[in-house]
Amino acid sequence: MKLATIQLAEGTQAAVEVATGYLPLAASSLSELLSDGTWKQQVEAALAAHQESEIIPGETVALSNPLPAPAKVICCGLNYSDHITEMGRELPEYPTLFAKFADTLTGPTDQLNIRHSTNVDWEAELAVVVGQRLSDATADEASEAIAGYTVANDVSLRDWQRRTLQWFQGKAFDASTPIGPVLVTTDEIDPVAGVEVICRINGEEVQRGNTKTLVFSAANLLAYISQFTTLNPGDIVLTGTPGGVGMGMTPPRYLQDGDQLETEIPGIGTLSNKVSLRVAANATH
Amino acid sequence: MKLATIQLAEGTQAAVEVATGYLPLAASSLSELLSDGTWKQQVEAALAAHQESEIIPGETVALSNPLPAPAKVICCGLNYSDHITEMGRELPEYPTLFAKFADTLTGPTDQLNIRHSTNVDWEAELAVVVGQRLSDATADEASEAIAGYTVANDVSLRDWQRRTLQWFQGKAFDASTPIGPVLVTTDEIDPVAGVEVICRINGEEVQRGNTKTLVFSAANLLAYISQFTTLNPGDIVLTGTPGGVGMGMTPPRYLQDGDQLETEIPGIGTLSNKVSLRVAANATH
Repeated sequence: MKLATIQLAEGTQAAVEVATGYLPLAASSLSELLSDGTWKQQVEAALAAHQESEIIPGETVALSNPLPAPAKVICCGLNYSDHITEMGRELPEYPTLFAKFADTLTGPTDQLNIRHSTNVDWEAELAVVVGQRLSDATADEASEAIAGYTVANDVSLRDWQRRTLQWFQGKAFDASTPIGPVLVTTDEIDPVAGVEVICRINGEEVQRGNTKTLVFSAANLLAYISQFTTLNPGDIVLTGTPGGVGMGMTPPRYLQDGDQLETEIPGIGTLSNKVSLRVAANATH
Repeated sequence: MKLATIQLAEGTQAAVEVATGYLPLAASSLSELLSDGTWKQQVEAALAAHQESEIIPGETVALSNPLPAPAKVICCGLNYSDHITEMGRELPEYPTLFAKFADTLTGPTDQLNIRHSTNVDWEAELAVVVGQRLSDATADEASEAIAGYTVANDVSLRDWQRRTLQWFQGKAFDASTPIGPVLVTTDEIDPVAGVEVICRINGEEVQRGNTKTLVFSAANLLAYISQFTTLNPGDIVLTGTPGGVGMGMTPPRYLQDGDQLETEIPGIGTLSNKVSLRVAANATH
């Protein structure tokens, strides 16, 4: 199943993709839908009982940030062997983790309005969405608890990221991490077998990796995280980015004002976000 | 004013301290109270209009986590010159920041139940609570927007913290950061002029610092953070810990099962939390 949060005149609504468009569901977003433990049965019941007239035609649907209200957004750095090598590091024993906030996220076609940085870099990533509560879970339990997968770009302000030892301040700029366009359930996609993760700038491909080369799989990441913090339905874990980021280039390359940033995982979809940079006078106070 | 979230039979309630106890307010917690822009006027009106019979006597009040639902908890590391020296580092140009989750926090007398770690360390801290929305604020604007101050202990799992370059996984263990016991408004306390921050284990003092030696003041931290992420009422910023943490000792000292951890800021109050350590077999999988 492909699930989405769609934009309607009166607000957002959860929806499931059907052949001709999207069927609205009884929740304001996928964050709300997933918080109900019976979400799978609800979606299946809606699909079984729907009328053709309820379907919103695909060409008229505006897809919003699918998960506007996660309590936890946790990101893994340095998880693709080629990106680790590019950054000059060794394969890790433990996942490197940091956090974002719910409002760090933004929609699949939203403009990225970045202030105070001239070193804005891209990081195309597979994001895993939690479907059931996890605490001290095994990898098998974690695998069973995955609601599905979506696409994210962990857009990073490298100048801020490198100001101190902790990356957080370069990773948590408001509305800087596009996510979506849909959540694809685990019956349709298998990142362990491998899916491509692609980033393009103005049509030029800059990143292409495959999730089969992840050091820590989605299930392993959820199990590891669940040892120190409980994961709940709707929480999101970004699994890291493959090689090809701008700071790894010689000379480094960063996003420019007006660039069109595309992030694609075939089988899920493509994020397409225009970049707007605005460096204010107080950028370093 | 001293504000609190008190535990009643039917749930929690925001309250303000009066001479003989606590006067309940029309909100379930300080998180909810602060989310209303008129919270100061509400408290003043309640104080002006209350009946003696409404007051819950001080000796019967159980104080809960004052802020159970912050959208953002941001921590500053390495902010006291003596602690920076102790950790072998130089005075910083920018604050070192990382994040916790709302459910990393726990109440002022709650037991700390830590699993999977044998390197549990203490970090007594002044926490600043946001009272008004802040985005790209100046230090003066940030200073005006402070709701007040409370006490926190950024209890840190050093083994987890040192597994990777990012401290987050050692700082975000569920219910490991006690906070409270009350929120003291800015008319009663001035951390720039200086308040003592004290930590004791089983009555033995292990930390004593003074906020007048903070490299980045509360207002400067809020202004800096507001450049990359909007701060909203009820959000919390932990301002860092003074010298005297266990990992800085020779040999390092860590909290033991059964230890009583006390964290005090005179003028605000004292957190008193019993430590329960339970190392499970899967601590390192």
